[in-house]
Order: sequence, then C-alpha cells, then structure tokens
Amino acid sequence: MAAFHFQILKKDTRSAARRGEMVTPHGTVQTPAFMPVGTQGTVKGLTPERLRELGVEMILGNTYHLTLRPGHELIRHLGGLHRFMNWPGPILTDSGGFQIYSLGALRKISADGALFQSHIDGSRHMLTPEHAVEIQEALGADVMMCLDECTPYPATWEQAEASLDLTLAWAARSRAARTREDQALFGIVQGGMHLPLRRRSVEALADIGFDGYALGGLSVGEAKDQMQGVVREIAPLLPEGRPRYLMGVGTPEDIVNCVAYGIDMFDCVIPTRCARNGLLFTNREKVVIKHARHREDPSPLDCLCDCYTCRHYSRAYLRHLYMTGEILAMVLNTIHNVRHYQRLMERIRQAIEENRYDAFRSQFLDEQEMGRGPIPRNDHFQSGP
Amino acid sequence: MAAFHFQILKKDTRSAARRGEMVTPHGTVQTPAFMPVGTQGTVKGLTPERLRELGVEMILGNTYHLTLRPGHELIRHLGGLHRFMNWPGPILTDSGGFQIYSLGALRKISADGALFQSHIDGSRHMLTPEHAVEIQEALGADVMMCLDECTPYPATWEQAEASLDLTLAWAARSRAARTREDQALFGIVQGGMHLPLRRRSVEALADIGFDGYALGGLSVGEAKDQMQGVVREIAPLLPEGRPRYLMGVGTPEDIVNCVAYGIDMFDCVIPTRCARNGLLFTNREKVVIKHARHREDPSPLDCLCDCYTCRHYSRAYLRHLYMTGEILAMVLNTIHNVRHYQRLMERIRQAIEENRYDAFRSQFLDEQEMGRGPIPRNDHFQSGP
Repeated sequence: MAAFHFQILKKDTRSAARRGEMVTPHGTVQTPAFMPVGTQGTVKGLTPERLRELGVEMILGNTYHLTLRPGHELIRHLGGLHRFMNWPGPILTDSGGFQIYSLGALRKISADGALFQSHIDGSRHMLTPEHAVEIQEALGADVMMCLDECTPYPATWEQAEASLDLTLAWAARSRAARTREDQALFGIVQGGMHLPLRRRSVEALADIGFDGYALGGLSVGEAKDQMQGVVREIAPLLPEGRPRYLMGVGTPEDIVNCVAYGIDMFDCVIPTRCARNGLLFTNREKVVIKHARHREDPSPLDCLCDCYTCRHYSRAYLRHLYMTGEILAMVLNTIHNVRHYQRLMERIRQAIEENRYDAFRSQFLDEQEMGRGPIPRNDHFQSGP
Repeated sequence: MAAFHFQILKKDTRSAARRGEMVTPHGTVQTPAFMPVGTQGTVKGLTPERLRELGVEMILGNTYHLTLRPGHELIRHLGGLHRFMNWPGPILTDSGGFQIYSLGALRKISADGALFQSHIDGSRHMLTPEHAVEIQEALGADVMMCLDECTPYPATWEQAEASLDLTLAWAARSRAARTREDQALFGIVQGGMHLPLRRRSVEALADIGFDGYALGGLSVGEAKDQMQGVVREIAPLLPEGRPRYLMGVGTPEDIVNCVAYGIDMFDCVIPTRCARNGLLFTNREKVVIKHARHREDPSPLDCLCDCYTCRHYSRAYLRHLYMTGEILAMVLNTIHNVRHYQRLMERIRQAIEENRYDAFRSQFLDEQEMGRGPIPRNDHFQSGP
C-alpha cells in the first residue's frame, strides 16, 4: 500500500497559498482540498458515486459517532470504514475530541483522557489518546487525528496553557500508540487565541513529528478576524513540507482567506447542513429556498453551476420539495452545495497554479461583500453530536 | 404527439393474463406494469434517472396533493408536471377522489362534487368532475382518471348503488369536460363488493367510452380473497382492447394473482413506504432491517437482486443507516424495494410471453407462503394524505 506522502506543486508568490498533492493509500488528493463531513459513515443524502461526480476526493468521518454506532470493532470486522460505506477514496477521521468537547456537562477531562456520556443512551465511555488511535486504526482511516482537548473560547492564558499541556502530552502518547504504518497521523495545534502558546504548540508537535498538522480550537465562538489572525500568524510556522489542516472551517470566505495563509485542507458541515436547511450557495447570493419569491421561478439555483441540480431543476421545484419536506429536497440541495464548494476549491487551485491567488482572493471577497447573505456565525457549524 | 394506444401482444392460455404495450405521448409502457407513487411530484428519495435505472417506465402523481401544493396552475405555468419534476416518461394522475375519501370527516360529497378541507391548512376546496379534469389537463398527465366516489367498506347494496350512480354521473361529466386529445382518460368501476353493481358499472362506463378502465374501491378494508373475488369476476368483463388498471394494489402476491385475472396496471405505496420504514422485500423473506440479527451481517439484502443497494452495501450497513436515521437509509431502501417490484413485473411479463403464467403464479405463491413476513394488511397502503 502506498505510503502517505505530501508534495507541494506550486507556491503563490504574493501570498502563502500552496498548491499540493497528498498521496494516501486510497488515492491522491489535490490541495487545497475541502472534505465534506460524513459523520455516521455517510455524507448525508449522497451516494459515494455522487460524491465522486461532484469532484470530492476525500471525506471526513467522525470517530465519536462511529465508535458509539455501529462500533469500530464492527466496522473493522466488516473490512473497515471504506468498505463499510462503499467509499473507495481517502478518509480522514477526527479523534472524537471535538465532539466530546461539545458535550459540555456530559464530559470530564483528566490527564488520562476524556470521560463522557453518550448523547444517544447516556452510557459512560472513556476515550484516551491510545484508545482514539486504536479506534481510528480499526476504522482504517487514511489520516488519523490525535486526541486533543479543544480549548474553550474565551480562555485565559493559564487555562489555555493548561489545556495545551494536556494536548501536547496526549499528542506524544498518540504518536507512541500507533501500530499501523499505512495510516498517517496528524497533530493538532492548540493554545487558544494566545499566539505565544500557539507557537509553543507548533514547536512541540514538530519535535514529536507528525505526518501533517492541524489548527484546532478555532471557529469556537471567536470573531472572524481573530480566527484569521491566528491562522495568518501560525500556519506559516508549521513544517513546510507537511499538509496543514484547518479543522471545522468554514464559509467560502473563510476558506479563500485561509488558503492565502497557507492552509491545505478544510472540513466543515456548512455546505451539507445548510443544504438540508434550505440555504444554498451561489456565486452571487445565498439563496433561502423557502422564500416566496422563488415560488414561480423557472430558473436554476445558479445558472453558472454545472451540478445535477442546477442542470435539471427550477428554483420553483426546489422550493416545492423543501416546503413539502421531501427527501429529494435534501438530496438535490446537498448536491448543489457540495458541488459549489468543490468548484470553489477548483478555482482556488487554478488561481494558485497561475500565480494569481492574491488577485483571485480580492475579487472573490469583493463579490461576496456585494452579495452577502444570511450565513450564520461559523461556530454553529462544527459537527457536534 | 403520439396518440394513446394499447395493444395486447400475447395472451396466456391457462389464465386471463395479458402481455401488452401502452403507447403514450411520453413513451411506451410494457404491461403488466407497476407504477411507483410520486405523490408530490417526486417518488420519495429517488431521482428520475434512478427510477429509469430501476426499470420504471411510468409513475403516478396525486392530483389532490399537487393542486394544494404547489398548485396545478403553477405547474402548468412551468411547463407541466413532466418538466417540473424532470421525469420525461409517462405519468398517470389520479383524480383526487381517493385522497378526499381518506379525509373522512373533512369532506362532504354532493351531486355536484366533493367539498373538502385541506389536510395542510384546513382551507376549503370544491372538487367537481370538471375541475378534476381541468387540473389533470394542467398537470399534463398522459393518463387522467375520472373523479369517482370511493365506496366505503362495508357498504349495503343501497349505499353502494347510490355511490355508484354518483360515480357514473361524474364519469359522464368527466368525459364531456376534457378538452385535450393527447391525454387518455380512464373510467373507474365502483360498486363495492356487490358483483351485480360492479357489472352494471362496467357496462355503463363502456357505453360512455374510455381509453382505459380502472377497478376502484378495493383494498379499502375488505379481506384479501374478497378483493380478489371481485377482480377475478369483473376484470374479464372490461373492454378487451383497453388497459385494465387495479388502483392502489398491492403486495407482490396481490399483483401476481390479479395479473392472472387480466389486470395490466398497478400502483401502490407499499414498496416506497415500506422502504422508508425499513421493511424490505426479497424473494425469500421480508427483511425488517432494524432487527439485531442484521447487525453484523456482511451479506447483501438479497443476493439475487441486481439493484445498486444489493450490489454495494451490506445488511449491517443498511441497519446502521436505518438506526441512525440517515437520509441514505431511505434512499438505498427505496432503490431496493422499487427494483424488487420492477423485477417481479419483468418476471411476470416474461412468464406470460412464454405462456407459463399459471405455473409461474403457483410457484411464486408457494415460495411466498414459505417465506411469509410481516407485511401489514393492504388497506394501510393507499396514498391517503
């Protein structure tokens, strides 16, 4: 099986944007890449063939959800997550840390690990760094994430530092726990909004040595420019030749900005969850499909989009499906939003290849400013249970 | 546009089964045919391309639902139901009569028509035979149905006769109301369980003259053998050269039996509704996918099935999707059940072509008897609102 490998193909000269290629045992991923979220072993509403058709190369699975249902041992027994869900391409699994963080009062963190109660049946479980690796090895992800503690926002220096120390200790234990060489393991940078702590986190993780590095603890309630400030300062410090992954981000604007700071990988539930809620992305505007003004509209959602939904259905039909609660509403809307994100990533990659990323970004943000719609705050959109 | 035309290709010599071909403006349908139900302008969970892939040639749309939401004038304005829902093949629309019957206390029948309250917002509407034709002309169905009164079960002779007289008067008014020649119009035989009334109904409808004839008022609570008795006696009396349509039926067993009595067309929500409820058809058994015995089962639902679901997914995965309430559960389950029904129709048509329908039927019923599963009574499965 091919070893994990990352290669930078091109660097933009007026920004920190990178155009790369990530080779995994289940295929190659062009970066910058956006991974749709397949929480429970399915990207909600889409078949794997549809995902491929939409240009998706890599998806994310949630360890927390999969270990509770149907259980990682069952998935191992059935040949691993790829086979279980019929997705032959690369998969990244998170560690479960963020979901446990989202449980609030239902979890208790100690040096050993995270004790939590299932959101399904209230049963108690202990997730240690070693167990998170074991689960992800059972799932067979191409990329595994270290268990981390997501530092809350806001956090004082002392709180953020204590949390960071725990995350760093867990990172070392995760690194030591892995038994399979065909899976990559990424470390997660924490430190809250405190840049010196973030810098220390980068150095410590690089000393341990990972196949890639993620920025965690962002999009948890802080302002947009605060999040971007951390990414802008910290991303360039991450080891140059390894993929850089910004976890749980974000809106198209967030992605365009953070690519400029050197981020290679993104995941977020925004395109899929918004689709199910009838909020649809186009280049010109955000469309709330239930609005009465779409009632008789024979035009497609986005006349510039090449997706199945835009090629075959009117806004009037999509509104009708949404208003009547039809399953096909969620399917067609998800197809569009996922394709919208993948087309954005294609445009981003092309702009970097042509060394005009900075100009692309400026133009994109100007257009978005003009057509700004009702996308809620980013912190609603991480995949908590 | 091609005129409506029905042709019998082959007749079984040991039963009344017929193998035919129905030509409509939107394509040809091989009969005996089963039409999946697309109540609100979508067969729940499936794209039109998927329906084609599953072998579906014709679908049913519900006038009652479509006229309430999004409204037939809107659909006319957008080019008709075919274009609205992106289904290029033949469509049959019911008249709305059965849904109004299902409203119970929310409707009042008079000689003029049916006054009813919307199940959505309680608004009052009047559906007359003329209006039912007007709506179906706006929708642009290939086959329209006359407005009828569904005779309740049980009904005395007097009740059934009064109801039949109303239906016959409405049938004549429907016939007179049509303005488009490119759409077929079917009459509906009523008469409850009283065979003399049913016979009178057949004669009166044939005198008016329709493009096809349906048996209505069945699967409304009567016993299986009572339903089959009516079909066995009455279907052969219908005009030989016109399609015979048994409305709202049924289980695979019902279909296999009623084809032997000369029925050419069926529709029912059983395959689609059962799929969404996790009840799946196979040749050997009915599978309740939530049962714990499927938890670790790596085998497909039906190893003899050629559908997308059976080719790619295990029972364990389907159970997981169902238990977690995933959209994909409904999609994959619907794919399987619809394909199961279409494969049954393919086998039925082949058996008639090879003049061995009676033997096929005996063998099929024996196998079903051995693998009988928990399919509820048929009367739960018409598409009431």
